[in-house]
Amino acid sequence: MSSERVIYMDNNATTRVAPEAVEEMMPYFSDLYGNPSSMHTFGGQVSSKVKEGREKVAAILNCVPVEIVFTSCGTESDNFAVKGIFEAHPDKKHFITTRVEHPAVFNLGRWLEHRGYDVTFLSVDNQGMLNLDELRNAIRPDTGLVSIMWANNETGTIFPIPQIARIVKGAGCFLHVDAVQAIGKIPIDLRKVPIDLLAMSGHKVHAPKGIGVLYVRKGTKIRGQMIGGHQERGRRGGTENTPSIIGFGKACELAMENMADEVSRVKALRDKLEDFILNNIPKVYLNGHPTERLPNTLSVSFEYIEGE
Amino acid sequence: MSSERVIYMDNNATTRVAPEAVEEMMPYFSDLYGNPSSMHTFGGQVSSKVKEGREKVAAILNCVPVEIVFTSCGTESDNFAVKGIFEAHPDKKHFITTRVEHPAVFNLGRWLEHRGYDVTFLSVDNQGMLNLDELRNAIRPDTGLVSIMWANNETGTIFPIPQIARIVKGAGCFLHVDAVQAIGKIPIDLRKVPIDLLAMSGHKVHAPKGIGVLYVRKGTKIRGQMIGGHQERGRRGGTENTPSIIGFGKACELAMENMADEVSRVKALRDKLEDFILNNIPKVYLNGHPTERLPNTLSVSFEYIEGE
Repeated sequence: MSSERVIYMDNNATTRVAPEAVEEMMPYFSDLYGNPSSMHTFGGQVSSKVKEGREKVAAILNCVPVEIVFTSCGTESDNFAVKGIFEAHPDKKHFITTRVEHPAVFNLGRWLEHRGYDVTFLSVDNQGMLNLDELRNAIRPDTGLVSIMWANNETGTIFPIPQIARIVKGAGCFLHVDAVQAIGKIPIDLRKVPIDLLAMSGHKVHAPKGIGVLYVRKGTKIRGQMIGGHQERGRRGGTENTPSIIGFGKACELAMENMADEVSRVKALRDKLEDFILNNIPKVYLNGHPTERLPNTLSVSFEYIEGE
Repeated sequence: MSSERVIYMDNNATTRVAPEAVEEMMPYFSDLYGNPSSMHTFGGQVSSKVKEGREKVAAILNCVPVEIVFTSCGTESDNFAVKGIFEAHPDKKHFITTRVEHPAVFNLGRWLEHRGYDVTFLSVDNQGMLNLDELRNAIRPDTGLVSIMWANNETGTIFPIPQIARIVKGAGCFLHVDAVQAIGKIPIDLRKVPIDLLAMSGHKVHAPKGIGVLYVRKGTKIRGQMIGGHQERGRRGGTENTPSIIGFGKACELAMENMADEVSRVKALRDKLEDFILNNIPKVYLNGHPTERLPNTLSVSFEYIEGE
């Protein structure tokens, strides 16, 4: 296959690692391979670079670095959030999420059901949008956690997380947001939006695969899920993945610098393709919301055509 | 600090990634960044390389590739093994491990205790060795799992896993072995040693940080812990960490090729240092077993000297 002739359009599945991120990572595979938790100097010089990576990831969320817990992927972050909250709050027996979550959160809902929890799966309308009254009515005194994605990975529909946060926090529940698909595509400011937990994945924002983050708002009572050493302030055992943390930090820095330009460039290309398809192919219609949608995402259905 | 003048002696904490492994990983950060679980060609060419990585890791254990589950680290592998067995076998309420395990397994023992399980922590003698009669006597009808490390990370003492496997399997229990410290230093042949589960970590064998393996013998009933997508045959959700899997495979290949030479070279250096210290410094003694010990490990105590 001649890769020069291929246009890759699956950046919601995974992205190329930014060359600048790879470059920053490289020394930490070779000369600077120390364990950041080792007490000797060789570990110490790595740990200061890990600190810098954490600061850069915190910056894209406008939170403080201590609220960033590095994990191995978005899926692990979602597992940590959902299991960690219910373990820390055993009186809570009800979970609210949506029918359109990523398999990690959706299947965690099923997993809780099998363990005797009540789970409400909120539905979406034909533009992929939630009904906030349905959310309001679903909340109960024993609702421990609401988990709603910021933007959908297939249709690109953006949920109104600031409004959702007001509803959920107003009712005194914890709110987890899977923001894996939204990071770097829409601005996120956690000083303004009072969510408790937020999942990120490196490989969706031009950082490597195998690194994720769970944002944990200061003061949130949650149980660690990776039992082991004292890493990540005791919240996640396992040797820190230093090259990937450094690469993730660099990718977040680049995403912040380039977001405005990149979004308008990609949106223009997306809109051009969308117009062409909708105007030239019969029996085709748009999935997801016409305007409240990620600028990079286009999902269309072709009637009478097999998916493969 | 002039790094040329530093001799790094902490290879039990972490190792430099082999340049050959980094080289094999590089294209998978850039041109070949596809998601191996995507159905398009771009994902497919990555998935064949992941398959090759899995085969190479299986080779160092002499097991079949389907028994290899990639995780994010040794700690995750230990969590998967211990929690996964007890979840799948709810009638079992007793866990046996040792007082000298890595914090991952040791703290999983404490974690089980907090959940109402009985846990037996086997002691070791002054050479760091287990008493196998103590193990035999500890096994009960409700013992679900025995977890014993292959070699100790601090003293290097090697436990007699083949004998332990005969005892544990003879009693009908599951056996998990944390082999993080033993891989690449002593030969391991899982066709000959009937253990059920075994944890490996990439960064201890010149593969990158952020990748681990849980070996799961075919037919072992265990529950997945990372709820999410269908990756790793449904046993571990989360996008495959392709560059690190490929790097781990290469590192295992190199370890197999070089084990005999490397072991005799490092052992000679270790023995020279050991002789010098024991013969020239007063009030010093060797920790761990004099002969049943990893060839790369030297642990000594200096009386009347502070650890730092």
